[in-house]
Amino acid sequence: MKKIRAAVVGYGNIGKYVVEALEAATDFEIAGIVRRASSLAQGEESKYKVVSSLEQLEGVDVAILCTPSRLVEQSAEAALKLGISTVDSFDIHTGIADMRARLDVIAREHNAASLISAGWDPGSDSVVRALLEVCAPQGITYTNFGPGMSMGHTVAVKAIAGVKAALSMTIPVGTGIHRRMVYIELEEGYDFAKVAEAIKTDAYFIHDETHVIQVDSVEALKDMGHGVNMVRKGVSGKTQNQRFEFNMSIDNPGLTSQILVAGARAVLRQKPGCYTMIEIPVIDFLAGEREEIIRRLV
Amino acid sequence: MKKIRAAVVGYGNIGKYVVEALEAATDFEIAGIVRRASSLAQGEESKYKVVSSLEQLEGVDVAILCTPSRLVEQSAEAALKLGISTVDSFDIHTGIADMRARLDVIAREHNAASLISAGWDPGSDSVVRALLEVCAPQGITYTNFGPGMSMGHTVAVKAIAGVKAALSMTIPVGTGIHRRMVYIELEEGYDFAKVAEAIKTDAYFIHDETHVIQVDSVEALKDMGHGVNMVRKGVSGKTQNQRFEFNMSIDNPGLTSQILVAGARAVLRQKPGCYTMIEIPVIDFLAGEREEIIRRLV
Repeated sequence: MKKIRAAVVGYGNIGKYVVEALEAATDFEIAGIVRRASSLAQGEESKYKVVSSLEQLEGVDVAILCTPSRLVEQSAEAALKLGISTVDSFDIHTGIADMRARLDVIAREHNAASLISAGWDPGSDSVVRALLEVCAPQGITYTNFGPGMSMGHTVAVKAIAGVKAALSMTIPVGTGIHRRMVYIELEEGYDFAKVAEAIKTDAYFIHDETHVIQVDSVEALKDMGHGVNMVRKGVSGKTQNQRFEFNMSIDNPGLTSQILVAGARAVLRQKPGCYTMIEIPVIDFLAGEREEIIRRLV
Repeated sequence: MKKIRAAVVGYGNIGKYVVEALEAATDFEIAGIVRRASSLAQGEESKYKVVSSLEQLEGVDVAILCTPSRLVEQSAEAALKLGISTVDSFDIHTGIADMRARLDVIAREHNAASLISAGWDPGSDSVVRALLEVCAPQGITYTNFGPGMSMGHTVAVKAIAGVKAALSMTIPVGTGIHRRMVYIELEEGYDFAKVAEAIKTDAYFIHDETHVIQVDSVEALKDMGHGVNMVRKGVSGKTQNQRFEFNMSIDNPGLTSQILVAGARAVLRQKPGCYTMIEIPVIDFLAGEREEIIRRLV
């Protein structure tokens, strides 16, 4: 059977895990890795062809975009314009619907398909959230994150004067409310109390219970584990008090990369256009023969 | 906006809850209820048109089949041959793939669509099971049921000589293993010990830890609540020890009926053919505008 030829675009943390996940998936082969020219110059060794632009790779069926979220749309556009389908884990929730509308036009024009926001949240969590509304259309869902590192909040802390290194941990306290535990190394000549105050009054933190703790080494605290606890209590038809809960405790880049690879498989099974995960049948993400999957999982 | 006209076929426990769920769903209207001629004769009052065959109802878009599982296929066939799409909660796991193959042919011939096994297990649980394999393709999933009444096991107990009334409760003991708590009323002239032994050695019970308890009234013990605890520990790409858990505590007919109604909505959005829930995008089961759903849930 012909294997799916995937290009890995971006070779940071996620890109490296995507290569692992592609190696573990028997229906894929790696066409190559696309890196910035500046990274290429470093001459790191690789078993795969490493290039600076997607055009330099041959016979690519799908590009797995592992660039930072703010660069995803331009990467997706570039690939789609070559007629190459794409999958990404774009995670800025408020930007998803609009990006989908824009990429949908480009994808159709170039007879390719794009799956966006295919990580775990947005991504697999979105599928669970939607399914829980199918089960109980009336009610409230709370998505509780953590304990785990928040990339966005960590970046926000690093931008504050006096912070040499930082780590912002998200701690779930229930009903979608989160505590922020911020660990910082202090730049010399700064007053900890003032820096801590600046963090707590930053737009990223002002609405949450935030604790700032000074440490010698932020690096020593880092752990890529993360968690989710999603709960819904609602009404099925006219039946009250239906209760649902979804929990996971996972390695963050490990799960994101796995879903990206499954998404690369799924997107090739769609008609031209741009999709989110809830718009694609779950079976399309799975390798193997359809009828066997139905016998085993339904 | 034109409402979906649904016929409710079968008016037992599930049929009654389906009527409630249809009343709660603002995008549906009830075309009528199809009952056996013998039930019709009883002259029970209804706000809806009650007939003895689907042909007697007008403008039906979809038939929601609430007949017992063993009668589902013939009901589905009859509806599909009228060009009416169907949804059911057929729950005999080993029969699903074959029934799907047979109904697929009939549905395509008559330009209609059929969604089968759209309850909670098979059904929404199947979607979660498939999604967990997307997240961690290598590993083990355990689906633990209960505490709750098992219809199949209860029927099996009732068939044993000396049993006047019965209730078989499924109790989860983890890793997909279940204890059976069987409550019976004894027929006069029978020896409890012998009847209990006959139950424990019945094919339905012989492989499980089974306890038989004699009670004065089985009716007094009945409760339509049920539960699921699904766990998966597996590997995402090459990342070990990813852990997932899905729990629910629900009213059984309440949830089944809700999913049937959501399935009635979803099946009308599919091309002709026969489907299980994992083959349909989750968004198709939800009422409302697509882009708004994406903004809210992804």
